[in-house]
Amino acid sequence: MNREIDISEINFDASGLVPAIVQDAASGQVLMMAWMNRETLGETLDTSSLVFFSRSRQQRWKKGETSGNSMQLEAAYMDCDSDTLLFKVLAAGPACHNGTTSCFEVGNA
Amino acid sequence: MNREIDISEINFDASGLVPAIVQDAASGQVLMMAWMNRETLGETLDTSSLVFFSRSRQQRWKKGETSGNSMQLEAAYMDCDSDTLLFKVLAAGPACHNGTTSCFEVGNA
Repeated sequence: MNREIDISEINFDASGLVPAIVQDAASGQVLMMAWMNRETLGETLDTSSLVFFSRSRQQRWKKGETSGNSMQLEAAYMDCDSDTLLFKVLAAGPACHNGTTSCFEVGNA
Repeated sequence: MNREIDISEINFDASGLVPAIVQDAASGQVLMMAWMNRETLGETLDTSSLVFFSRSRQQRWKKGETSGNSMQLEAAYMDCDSDTLLFKVLAAGPACHNGTTSCFEVGNA
């Protein structure tokens, strides 16, 4: 995996979270955005599986654990002020819990 | 502009903000992520120019106003739970204040 993230440099917000954009590495389509804390970011980088932290449920969740639609991490980036992450993935199924390829549909081809 | 956003449906966070992902409509490259409040989102949709709200400076800022590197809005989307925005743009110059095409470089081609 092409890894451009240094966890020690990440600026987590007041809740200890950082937004993580997920993009299809093949099509370029933006699939979803979710949140990570220090622990789930570490787990994501260590395992090459996307692991997030749910703000509403206040708990860890692993992408695909419920739906079966897992994603393989291809590359990980942070932005210029180290407070947003970008992950490029190979998706084995729809990213959205609604069954659509992207959470940003309708219309985002 | 292809507009899939209804402001009345947006779930702004406790600070009245929503994250906005900016993607190059031509290349598919993710360029930057910034924040909007209800006012700057309205201005963005009304003018087809990206207007954000700075969390650190607590003020409105318009993309390109300082740098001259403006972006033309091509399409606007919200995600499945209405708490993240995606804007596709035509960029006239670098998106990043560091002069790079994307804020997520190095390596994000």
